This record gives sequence, C-alpha cells and structure tokens, in this order.
Amino acid sequence: MKVQGKNYRTIWIKEENHEVISIIDQRYLPHRFVTEDIHTVREMEQAINDMHVRGAGLIGAAAGYGMYLATIEASRKNSFDFLLSCADALKATRPTAVNLEWAVNRQLNAITDGKSDKERITIARQTADLIANEDAAYCRNIGIHGVEIIEQISKRKKGGVVNILTHCNAGWLAFVDYGSATAPIYEAFERGINVHVWVDETRPRNQGASLTAWEFVNQGIPHTVIVDNAGGHLMQHGLVDMVITGADRVTVAGDAANKIGTYLKALAARDNGIPFYVALPSSTFDWNIRDGVKDIRIEERNSDEVKYVYGLFDDDIKKVLITPLSSPAGNYGFDVTPSRLISGLISERGICPATEEAITKMYAEKIHQL
Amino acid sequence: MKVQGKNYRTIWIKEENHEVISIIDQRYLPHRFVTEDIHTVREMEQAINDMHVRGAGLIGAAAGYGMYLATIEASRKNSFDFLLSCADALKATRPTAVNLEWAVNRQLNAITDGKSDKERITIARQTADLIANEDAAYCRNIGIHGVEIIEQISKRKKGGVVNILTHCNAGWLAFVDYGSATAPIYEAFERGINVHVWVDETRPRNQGASLTAWEFVNQGIPHTVIVDNAGGHLMQHGLVDMVITGADRVTVAGDAANKIGTYLKALAARDNGIPFYVALPSSTFDWNIRDGVKDIRIEERNSDEVKYVYGLFDDDIKKVLITPLSSPAGNYGFDVTPSRLISGLISERGICPATEEAITKMYAEKIHQL
Repeated sequence: MKVQGKNYRTIWIKEENHEVISIIDQRYLPHRFVTEDIHTVREMEQAINDMHVRGAGLIGAAAGYGMYLATIEASRKNSFDFLLSCADALKATRPTAVNLEWAVNRQLNAITDGKSDKERITIARQTADLIANEDAAYCRNIGIHGVEIIEQISKRKKGGVVNILTHCNAGWLAFVDYGSATAPIYEAFERGINVHVWVDETRPRNQGASLTAWEFVNQGIPHTVIVDNAGGHLMQHGLVDMVITGADRVTVAGDAANKIGTYLKALAARDNGIPFYVALPSSTFDWNIRDGVKDIRIEERNSDEVKYVYGLFDDDIKKVLITPLSSPAGNYGFDVTPSRLISGLISERGICPATEEAITKMYAEKIHQL
Repeated sequence: MKVQGKNYRTIWIKEENHEVISIIDQRYLPHRFVTEDIHTVREMEQAINDMHVRGAGLIGAAAGYGMYLATIEASRKNSFDFLLSCADALKATRPTAVNLEWAVNRQLNAITDGKSDKERITIARQTADLIANEDAAYCRNIGIHGVEIIEQISKRKKGGVVNILTHCNAGWLAFVDYGSATAPIYEAFERGINVHVWVDETRPRNQGASLTAWEFVNQGIPHTVIVDNAGGHLMQHGLVDMVITGADRVTVAGDAANKIGTYLKALAARDNGIPFYVALPSSTFDWNIRDGVKDIRIEERNSDEVKYVYGLFDDDIKKVLITPLSSPAGNYGFDVTPSRLISGLISERGICPATEEAITKMYAEKIHQL
C-alpha cells in the first residue's frame, strides 16, 4: 500500500544484500516512517517480541523470513540443531498468534527436504517469499469478498455514507499488504463507495490511533479516531453500519481471539442489530480447538504498557505516566469473541457463517488433514 | 477522605476568607496534589467547564458555591439580573450533569426569599453548605446500603476476594466526600472485607487511571488499573464479581447516562451473569424523561482530548500526540446504559430495581411534585 504516495510492503528482502530483511519499524508510527534492517534470526525474534512488527499475517511472514536467516546462520555454524532451536525461539516470541507457529512449522517441513546447506537456504528463502506472497494474495481476496457486504449496505443507503467501525490494526501493516479487516474497505474506496471508518484507538498500545489512522491518512480514506469506549454509543445512535475486525486465532467452531476489547464491540453490535464481521486469512484458523474462551491462552504483557502512553511531544516520541506510580496495572493482550456474536467470517475463500458446520464445509480438506 | 493521611473534602469555604472557595484542582492528579482558590463565579464556571472539578455531585456543589460567589458579586454590582445571568452561565458549563441545573435552581429558589443583599448572601452560603453536606451524607448512605451487596458476595466466597470493576471516577473526588460507586467499596474495606477493584482507566480523560487509582492509593484499597478494553475478558474468566459505576443522569425509567463506555461494561456483565449496579444520590434522577438513549443529550467535547494524552514526563505534566496530526477524532462524553442491563440502583434511600415502578415507588413524593 501507499506511504506518502510510494508503494510498500511491510517486509521485504533487501535488494542490495539478499541476506538482509527490511521491515517497517512500526513503533515509530504514526509520527515517523522508519525502516529497519534485520541481519540475524535473533534480531527478528526481538523485532517480533518487541513489536517492531506485529499483526497475525506479518508475524507469520516475519517468522518465515526469520527461519530463512536461521538457515544462513545454521550453515555458517554448521549446525542443524541451531535451526531447530531458532524455530522454538521464534515460536515463543508471541504466544497468541497462530500464524507464528504455522509459518515456522511450514519452514521446518520445507527445509528438511534440502540435502545441502545451500539447498536449505534456497528452499527457506523460497518458502519465506511464498508465505509473504500468499499472505498478500489472501488479503487481496478478503477484500474482494468482503466488499460485497459494503456494497450491499451502500445500495441500501442509496449511496449514502457507509459507516464502518474497526478495532485495532488489522490493516496492511498487520500483514504483508492490503490487510484483513481493511482490505474490504480499501476495495470499497477503490470502487468509489462512500465509506467512513470509526477507528478505535485500541488501548493499551493504540494500534488503531497510530497505525490504522496512519494507513487511512496515507490512502486517503475518510475516518475518525474514537476512544475504545465510544463504539456502543455510536451504535445506539445508528452511526455504525457494520463492524469489521481482524483476528489472531479463530477456532474451528468460529470463536475469534482478537485484540482486547473486540468482544465488547461484538456485544454492542449484537445489542443494536449491527452486523459484526471477522476478516482473516485461513492460516488464522486453529483447527484443533473449539471453545475459544476456554482454550485460547491469552497473552499477558508488561503492565507498563498500560501505565505509560507513547506519543509525540516537541517533535520527539516520549512516554508519559498516566497512573499513580505505585498503582499496579493488568495488561491482557486479547479477548475472545464467541461465535454466536459473529455475523460471518470473511476469508480468502469467501464469506461463511461463524459455525463449525460452515467452517468445516468451507475448509473440508483442512479438517481431513487432522 | 484521606490525602497522604490528612482528611479533605473536594470543595470548602476558605477559613481565612469566607468569600473564597477552595477546590482540589483535579487536572494535576494523580501526579500532583494542587488546591485552587476560586474568587469569582466566572472562575467557578471555568473550573467546571475546564474540569478542574468534575463528577456529578461535585459539579452540583461547585455550582452551589458558584451561586454563593455570585450573590456577593451581585451585591457589589447592585444587580439582581447579574445573579440570573450567572445562573444561566453556570448551567451552560456542562450540559449532561443534571446536578448542575438542580443546584443552581435550588439556589435561585432559596435566594429569592432573601430581602436584602446581605440576607441573600447568607442564604446562598447556607444553601451551598447544605448542598455540600447533603451530598456527603447521601454518599455515606449509598456506602451503607451498597456494602450489603459486597458482604453477600464475600459470604458466598467464604471471605475470598470480592473483585469489583468500576468505570471512570465516581469516587469522593466526583462528590464532596465518599463518592457514589466507591462509597460501598470504602465501607466494605472499613469493615474488613477482602476487596479488590479493577479500575477502568476511562479514556479519553483517564479519570479512572488518574483519579480513582489515586483515591485507592491514598485509602489503601487493593486495586489494579486496566484499559477500558479489558473488562469483558475479565468477566468471561470469572475475575469480576460485580460492577459498580456512578451516573450523571438517570431517567425515571432507570436508564443511566454515565461516562462513555459504561454501556459496554453493562453488556459484558449481562452476557456473563455478573451483577451491574449504578450508585447515585437521588439528585441525579431526571424525573422528566424516560428513554435515556433518545432523550439524554450527550456532550461532545474537543477532539484534542482524544488525540492528546496527558501524563508525567521528567517530573512535569506533558501532553503527547497519539494519532496522526491530520486525523480527525470524535469525542462523545457519555453513553446511556438501558435499565434492562442494570441489576439495581443504589441511592441514599436504599437499593431498588432499575424500573419505573420501583423508582416511582421509592421516590413517590418526587413524582408527586411534577
């Protein structure tokens, strides 16, 4: 997508040196556009753990490229065990994102086919590129399927503004390109549909205020940033036509783990008869679990993310304390929206109800593999 | 309540000069404890409008003392019309808080009984004190009634921790003393009940993180600050036993306007079978309206409150920008929780269901007056 008019992906192999991966260091957004070069798998682990990169799809792609870097290092160290330990370390960086494990396992499976170090490096690079390209293609297709819902609302409103609420950043910055929740919005905008997006700021890390809003500024999408508390009020007053969020893990029964607070928006949408959609590439499904509330482990992060807020002051990014210094804070990364609150799942294959029956029908071959 | 071990109210007549009102300038909390002297009704209007003082009860008391200052100034100007214009100006400072209008009208009714300027000043001072003292007494009684609910949960949990979630600051800082939502908590703590409070930070102005948490630090109440997004997740996992919030306006049918985001917590409480109580002094009732969502005007405030966050940096209070500078932001001050989501209303008279039948029975004489 565009950054100041120029096209970017969120992660790419550096042209000048193919053993270096470039990423957008998202910690500086929306105030500064900074790219970062990643030279080792350890640096990639840190980039994932410290959230230079974040978001389901991008974490998967980053893990893919991390494994590519690992094969280069393993070759230098002449140690296959090193590769396996890197795989474990990458998987451990963020516990909730299913794409992480999925991408690392995909690399491990592919790499074992390589007979020499050189072959393994080539295969790992190809696989990393494949993961990234698939991610972009899947998001593009999510946009093409999801836009139908927006088009229907637009028709019903006779071309009037379609107000969409989104939580967190399930934008192109969370993937390799296009995004999941944003893909239908970008597609609608391309097609000339009158869209306006309510952007939940998404505390504690403000990915909505800093990333989604920044994406929309760069693509020219009409939007308004709101606090996470505001969505219910807007829905009560007919100011939201639909909700689209992303997901970090969706169970085979359709329960969706997503950024903390998503569940509250789903409840408000249900209470006001507003459609609530979850957009996801199929890699986000976890085919092994049903009950998301019970079975998805929710990441607890450092309490300082709640107690301190990052923002721009005097042309510099500062973090300010917003609680009494001595107050403890709790920091739960995600919550689970039960399938009963979800109107539909938008994936690269199409739109399906958030029910086990519909999901297992649409993804019959995945279920078959289990 | 206590501030660093010393007892305070939130507003008082200055001892050295009875024509000066002192307040706690809450904009500096939790980082600095600052008191401010108010010399004119215009200064009081600004203190209310710019939220040096805020919260239903305290706004009422501040308006009462504002009218007292107005009688002094009216006497100097020799103009009764000035008094009336002050009354209008005070009422216009914050549109949602019913206590504001109520306190000003109470003063106007009382003052008209005064024959001379001197009598009017005396009456206005007495009335302002009465409003403040009543507010404190009502909150004390809210605590005594509300603690019964906490005691029951404590018994059911065999003395285990009672986890209470609260939104915004309906603490003593929002009133003259004790608070509404906090009064039962303070009373429970006094009685040795094992309480722990989840404190919603309450964006955009962070009254939970800055005021409620500060109160709890000063009173020694175990608490944990959370982002507004977290409550649903905590409720899904059995970590919340009850919710208590305050209210800015409650209709005769039991719909409650309170800080934006309250409605979302009420939905989550309902979805998880957790009792959701609203604590309020009876002055917060609006006897003239039924449908809160339709009939309560919701204050829209400056978008900079969303785009910028105040906090402590380098021992100084700074405001940092958290969105792209060019992104628009929406800032809705309150939302309305429909009575169907409220387990009960805790007022100075006792606990009653949030239904028109129960409310009109408990407040028969108020309805009779209409």
